Amino acid sequence: MSDSPRSPDTVLYLDDLAVGARFSSGEHAMDAQQIKAFAAQFDPQPFHLDDEAAKKSLFGGLAASGWHTAAITMRLLVTSGIPLADGVIGAGGEISWPRPTRPTDVLHVESEVLEITPSRSRPDRGMATVRSETRNQHGDILQVFTAKMVVSRRL
Amino acid sequence: MSDSPRSPDTVLYLDDLAVGARFSSGEHAMDAQQIKAFAAQFDPQPFHLDDEAAKKSLFGGLAASGWHTAAITMRLLVTSGIPLADGVIGAGGEISWPRPTRPTDVLHVESEVLEITPSRSRPDRGMATVRSETRNQHGDILQVFTAKMVVSRRL
Repeated sequence: MSDSPRSPDTVLYLDDLAVGARFSSGEHAMDAQQIKAFAAQFDPQPFHLDDEAAKKSLFGGLAASGWHTAAITMRLLVTSGIPLADGVIGAGGEISWPRPTRPTDVLHVESEVLEITPSRSRPDRGMATVRSETRNQHGDILQVFTAKMVVSRRL
Repeated sequence: MSDSPRSPDTVLYLDDLAVGARFSSGEHAMDAQQIKAFAAQFDPQPFHLDDEAAKKSLFGGLAASGWHTAAITMRLLVTSGIPLADGVIGAGGEISWPRPTRPTDVLHVESEVLEITPSRSRPDRGMATVRSETRNQHGDILQVFTAKMVVSRRL
């Protein structure tokens, strides 16, 4: 996973986006320690904290908090996903977790621009609807987040 | 904020829920250090990391990552919000952030049951649609999450 800042010539403004444009992020390797640490801080439930308790739960084994998957997805988008000029700023969206994230999963994010809407009242910005699938190394979809993002225009 | 485990007599099954039932969580006090620590790990963008850079951004000052607000909301729900018998398990939902979360905000969550749907194929569970508003001490709504939750039935 690359953490280097975007070089200025690769950033995109609303005017540079096209419906159907796709972006693929770098990777993030999950493990049990990360899952338990996040859960202890933000989602302290047995199936995110303890292997034995997780086996007896609906998840059938240790699973990451959905919000942990969401947070890692955000890191991947910000550091190596869609290179928006003024950052990845979401107003909201629809999120789902079709499968739990497991300790052995290596995550990456595939994003697609679905819609582009310049603002009528603010000439300096607009909204882009972007669907981001978080997948593991087997191609299984762990999270789908369809977000409305605030994107700057090239002025 | 209470972290004590639920006592068995207060947990709720799908059969115990009613449309319109409301739940209010404990509180969580935000601060700049928490905002920057979460951002460094999961959402490393200037407006979540640096006061001066944040002033010049769309946010006009330091703001928490939306995923940080979501993660704290989850902690409040799990430790002191709606006391579901087998835990707070979301299949997905719609999330929005009407206002940024600020370092001085004290958060709590107000939840309301919108819909209850027993499973046709699984007699041991069902889905509840729950709307959770994350508010600050002034009553401002910082996040709305309308979730489809998996809830066990009383067998």
